[in-house]
Amino acid sequence: MQPALRLHNFSAGPATLPEAVLLEIKEELPVYGDLGASVLEISHRSAAYTQIAQDARDRMRRLLGVGAEWHVLFLQGGASMQFHQAPLNFRKAEGSADYVVTGRWAANALKEAQRTGKARAAASSEDQNFSYLPDVAAWDIDPEAAYLHITSNNTVAGTQFRETPQVAPPLVCDASSDFLSRPIDMARHALVYAGAQKNIGPAGATAVLVRDDFLQRRNASLPVMLDYGVHAAKLYNTPPVFAVYVIGKVLAWLEGRGGLAAMDKINEGKAGALYARIDRTDFYRGVARKEARSRMNVTFRLPSEDLEGRFLAEANAQGLLGLKGHRSVGGMRASLYNACPEASVDALIAFMDDFERKRG
Amino acid sequence: MQPALRLHNFSAGPATLPEAVLLEIKEELPVYGDLGASVLEISHRSAAYTQIAQDARDRMRRLLGVGAEWHVLFLQGGASMQFHQAPLNFRKAEGSADYVVTGRWAANALKEAQRTGKARAAASSEDQNFSYLPDVAAWDIDPEAAYLHITSNNTVAGTQFRETPQVAPPLVCDASSDFLSRPIDMARHALVYAGAQKNIGPAGATAVLVRDDFLQRRNASLPVMLDYGVHAAKLYNTPPVFAVYVIGKVLAWLEGRGGLAAMDKINEGKAGALYARIDRTDFYRGVARKEARSRMNVTFRLPSEDLEGRFLAEANAQGLLGLKGHRSVGGMRASLYNACPEASVDALIAFMDDFERKRG
Repeated sequence: MQPALRLHNFSAGPATLPEAVLLEIKEELPVYGDLGASVLEISHRSAAYTQIAQDARDRMRRLLGVGAEWHVLFLQGGASMQFHQAPLNFRKAEGSADYVVTGRWAANALKEAQRTGKARAAASSEDQNFSYLPDVAAWDIDPEAAYLHITSNNTVAGTQFRETPQVAPPLVCDASSDFLSRPIDMARHALVYAGAQKNIGPAGATAVLVRDDFLQRRNASLPVMLDYGVHAAKLYNTPPVFAVYVIGKVLAWLEGRGGLAAMDKINEGKAGALYARIDRTDFYRGVARKEARSRMNVTFRLPSEDLEGRFLAEANAQGLLGLKGHRSVGGMRASLYNACPEASVDALIAFMDDFERKRG
Repeated sequence: MQPALRLHNFSAGPATLPEAVLLEIKEELPVYGDLGASVLEISHRSAAYTQIAQDARDRMRRLLGVGAEWHVLFLQGGASMQFHQAPLNFRKAEGSADYVVTGRWAANALKEAQRTGKARAAASSEDQNFSYLPDVAAWDIDPEAAYLHITSNNTVAGTQFRETPQVAPPLVCDASSDFLSRPIDMARHALVYAGAQKNIGPAGATAVLVRDDFLQRRNASLPVMLDYGVHAAKLYNTPPVFAVYVIGKVLAWLEGRGGLAAMDKINEGKAGALYARIDRTDFYRGVARKEARSRMNVTFRLPSEDLEGRFLAEANAQGLLGLKGHRSVGGMRASLYNACPEASVDALIAFMDDFERKRG
């Protein structure tokens, strides 16, 4: 039988995974090593899972160049749960937290924080549909804020902070859509979280990194499942075993590719090539301002919605999947996360050339 | 190459899955159907996932014999998150909820409810280490309780309610360890939840069934991720895609075996055979009172801890895995969930006969 074909997957998340990782998973079904069962079936207290989780945490710390002062947790509920959990842990009863609103998800984070207490926007780019990043020097930061929350990469509009801002309050970062795609200046952060399903694994796990000195400042008497301290202290309840296993494999693959500095170069190359194609003629038009462009989510429009519809249909027919932009932005979005191969970007560029030639 | 051997897996959870399901998953890596990608990599808004999730919900309703008046949700965080979420949704600001404390998990459920408001034990079997179930007629039920919470099967001590109690307050049931192992009288319930990792799938998803009329009584202004109503109304955020996919396959397998009435007979047969072996001589001794015995988790002791240690080591060496009882009970625990084959129970019984002959 002919093996089924893998196509070019530009999905914004859940997103493509390294084929080598998928083949390892396949190999380890229905039995993992000499365990007599698959990873889907083993106790989270077993020696095998304990090792899998420890390996994943160790690899994460190595990739980020941090030590035991950072707790590495694998939680559930995605970034959306973190929108509730972060203020619950770190904003005091009468305190406030600051948010930089640079996209749809950042806005959701602020909204959730406001649902249970005081939180404010220190800056926002909503006035131009989040197509730019507000200048850090102009942020209106509350020096008393429990923390300042940013979104390092904005999946919908396709913007990304070039570097981590240096601010007075502890920095909390939703890094869901660019986590481990480049080195992170962890010393500037207090808490970093990321839904796994874009750069580091499948849906169903959220990586949460919290610095111990910040963790110690959390509120008391929290619901046990929402208390970062409980999860930092021990394996409290059944974790998403299989998702952590896949994450571990992706982290090993990242180390094998040379770590975050190497990935940064690769990702810069992929996005650079695609933006160069967009900018080469006037047929395609980037959505985000150039200085704010994301290397993860490349958003662009065509001259008309009619052409955009044809572009999508033809791309899909040629095996270029997941290119439809978010409805709030329109047009196209090509997500080029870590596992998106250079060959997929090349194929997309060739298709764009061809489409323009025929319709331009 | 010789395929690696699957052994007899009696793990209390995450637990064994049907081998046929694992082989299907293997077959669908790294590409699912004609999708060009695996299920680990597809958008939760894609047509493929929408179908997978709808199929799983439909199968769940068919198996339980219920209609659209029951919402079927696949959430994250396990039963432990439900311990917080259920009171948050259904207990009014000054109200109270009742709990029947029949095991370690039931006690945790009460503790979490008490962390955020008023909750009380309507009955408890803690006085005898949860080895029995308090007589329903003697439960001290608060008629004003927002709900009464029970745990249908108690994994640690190995007890299980024979039938669903009929009580005045809306019934909330943690069915994590016997969900879909037998027919459920859904008409007596308002909310049923179950961590997937015992009877219906892998770790990382929680099935939550909530009756619409009960759902409508929930509190307002809840954190969005903890509001059952948000998840009942739409797919709010990225769900645990792969776990739902596996659950769907397990539900199809359950339907293929004849549904819940058929599973009830099979599970009765498996547990009946094992209890008969325990009771046949005085060498083995059941932990739970006979009238409260669980068909899912069979707990038993040997004449001495020394013999128990040897039993475990020899069982393990012979490919009978996961038999160590919870430390609060000691001895052995054989978990015989839906996917535990009759052949595994036969192998365990043969081993027990053999062990007794040699050491008894």
